[in-house]
Amino acid sequence: MQQFNMAKMATNAKVASRVAAQLTTIEKNALLNSIADAIESNSDQIIKENSKDIEAGREKGLAEAMLDRLLLTEQGIKDISSAIREIVALTDPVGDIANLSLRPNGMQVGKMRIPLGVIAMIYEARPNVTAEAAALCIKSGNAVILRGGSEAIHSNLALANCLHQVLTEHGVDKNVVSVIPDTSRSVIEQLLKQSDTIDLVIPRGGEGLIRYVSENSRIPVIQHFKGVCHLFIDKYADLNKAINILVNGKTRRPSACNSLETLLVHKDIADEFLPLAAKALADAANVKIHACEKSLPYFNNAEQATDDDYHAEYLAQEIAVKVVDSYDDAVAHINAFTSDHTEVIVTQDTSRAQQFIRQINSSVVMVNASSRFSDGNQLGLGSEIGISTDKLHAYGPMGLESLTTEKFVVYGDGQIRE
Amino acid sequence: MQQFNMAKMATNAKVASRVAAQLTTIEKNALLNSIADAIESNSDQIIKENSKDIEAGREKGLAEAMLDRLLLTEQGIKDISSAIREIVALTDPVGDIANLSLRPNGMQVGKMRIPLGVIAMIYEARPNVTAEAAALCIKSGNAVILRGGSEAIHSNLALANCLHQVLTEHGVDKNVVSVIPDTSRSVIEQLLKQSDTIDLVIPRGGEGLIRYVSENSRIPVIQHFKGVCHLFIDKYADLNKAINILVNGKTRRPSACNSLETLLVHKDIADEFLPLAAKALADAANVKIHACEKSLPYFNNAEQATDDDYHAEYLAQEIAVKVVDSYDDAVAHINAFTSDHTEVIVTQDTSRAQQFIRQINSSVVMVNASSRFSDGNQLGLGSEIGISTDKLHAYGPMGLESLTTEKFVVYGDGQIRE
Repeated sequence: MQQFNMAKMATNAKVASRVAAQLTTIEKNALLNSIADAIESNSDQIIKENSKDIEAGREKGLAEAMLDRLLLTEQGIKDISSAIREIVALTDPVGDIANLSLRPNGMQVGKMRIPLGVIAMIYEARPNVTAEAAALCIKSGNAVILRGGSEAIHSNLALANCLHQVLTEHGVDKNVVSVIPDTSRSVIEQLLKQSDTIDLVIPRGGEGLIRYVSENSRIPVIQHFKGVCHLFIDKYADLNKAINILVNGKTRRPSACNSLETLLVHKDIADEFLPLAAKALADAANVKIHACEKSLPYFNNAEQATDDDYHAEYLAQEIAVKVVDSYDDAVAHINAFTSDHTEVIVTQDTSRAQQFIRQINSSVVMVNASSRFSDGNQLGLGSEIGISTDKLHAYGPMGLESLTTEKFVVYGDGQIRE
Repeated sequence: MQQFNMAKMATNAKVASRVAAQLTTIEKNALLNSIADAIESNSDQIIKENSKDIEAGREKGLAEAMLDRLLLTEQGIKDISSAIREIVALTDPVGDIANLSLRPNGMQVGKMRIPLGVIAMIYEARPNVTAEAAALCIKSGNAVILRGGSEAIHSNLALANCLHQVLTEHGVDKNVVSVIPDTSRSVIEQLLKQSDTIDLVIPRGGEGLIRYVSENSRIPVIQHFKGVCHLFIDKYADLNKAINILVNGKTRRPSACNSLETLLVHKDIADEFLPLAAKALADAANVKIHACEKSLPYFNNAEQATDDDYHAEYLAQEIAVKVVDSYDDAVAHINAFTSDHTEVIVTQDTSRAQQFIRQINSSVVMVNASSRFSDGNQLGLGSEIGISTDKLHAYGPMGLESLTTEKFVVYGDGQIRE
């Protein structure tokens, strides 16, 4: 096998990105439909390659949960194709001009949405990301370089093979989608240096991966380290809503980054609310409690909370609980411990609701709704390519629009500057 | 004097940024008006401090042009105050919610514009940047850390003094504006590490400064290395417009980044256009020409152009000229040599105009208008804080809106996720 050349792949992607940027919505949708069809009709081949990954994973002693995420079944492949067809249905943001306005000298000035160019995705085991991220990048007119986990390499290359076939059939430069065949760690280092050709890096995975990418990249990176989501039960809360939102936010799928990690309760309502909360959390999932001194007596077998608990992203059936003396103390606690992901207030008081919405600047701020809605699909973006807890470029769940930027367009009739 | 502590200044700015974010437009405008007044009424004091910089600059043998940019006259100070009053008149972007839409489950979801947080500006000699950047950051609800050139340190501290007085009088945390008193280069290194507290770095100055900041920053950086702006005279050009746009774009203020550096001419119109261009450029400013083989005969004393000329940002009365065989060749040349700043086509053909607007993805793309309009003020943004030729976050001239981001806001009534 030839030595893999990262710089060459990135340069080819840059050239292909100009082709991708000029495709019409009709052309892009036709491509995506063909890709969805091709993945389904090559199901056997993809599953065969996937089984090599599974076998190798077993030999390496991967955990069952990891093998589970790696496994592609016939149904799994149908799901990938459905996800791609959902992307076909999304509105294409490219080419829209916002606010074409007339300047005093008669020039028209507007901002046109354009693709970013070349996007690199670095992610861990799940092979479905390969197809879905490629589809989102194609729909938004970008070229994409994919670097999945080494555990999924056969599956990813099989999917890439499918995509390349379709691109070639449609007469489109196949470098619009590139899968890095090299599974060494050093290739990531090389990738992160290609700032002349790659416009954005999106890492998806554990905090370690994201930190590594952020600290070593010369290319802008979408950052999302963790989700320490807070739920504040205000003194004016409707207790029914509060309990539902608490149980849903903590216990429904605790491994997700939008699950709750800290419950704050206004002291005036603690006496009424905490016994209900204790029972509901115990009944729903026997949730382990890390309680402040004031809330400790309301729970069975709770541990005393430390500052570490307020920083913790448990990603499990565990929660930190704190009674706060006032609304302002709740805001101060959130500001001190926020991960800028999602924060929720439960209150029936409109002033409190508006204050919270204005004062908390996390990427998603909610009134009387479950933190579990903090997700691109649930918020109406269609498919999600990632989430940013960094305020630059995109903030919160990212859909197609986050894969684009805006350029200025000027229509003149010979104007010059005096 | 106490040892200067960069991390402490950044932490204080972060705390102050929460105050700045919550100011109403009325409060921010009152602050800015008071700042404009205070700068005028402290004119004598500021000029006295400025004269220390001028004196030190002379001793250090600064060039006259540099001293000129450094000098603050009474008129110069009035201009600063006027610039701040213009910022008062701009629309405050903070708090606007775009597209509050209803989800199928009854939740309302929208995106609210919020300040970025803490912005650091690193710039060279001009002290007016100190006041104007501070005003733009205040208006957009941000805290700002300013690091001007060491040559302007007395002027900058005098201006900071004025700002701090006004902030204190208005009962606002004075750390909303911080001027770094330490003029050592090592302080920039420290500043670029404060990624936990500083949200964005905007360097303004030469390519060396911007490269240094980009390569050493752990914080996102707005990048703008250079402006190699192209003017393409299409075969369907109106020659009058073409000549005006060429002369205006090249000769009006060649040291600006939006001045023209390369002229591309369609071969079918070269015979007619180039003699007019040669005369106009010679008459206007005796412009030095670097011509391709085909255009060489049209000019007196032109030099043969090399690829270096097509890469060059002359920032002087100099221009590279190239005859291209087709529209596609013009686009290919621009794609190969673009700095992603500004490109202009002169054509009367609507298809060509639309093609150019769609195909060229520089930050400003123009039809039949001078590249000199590529400027925040001219494009209708009001004051400009910088320009980005990097597609992330902002692209092109940056106004108030580029100092903000959007968070998701969700208004529910007890919704949970099934």
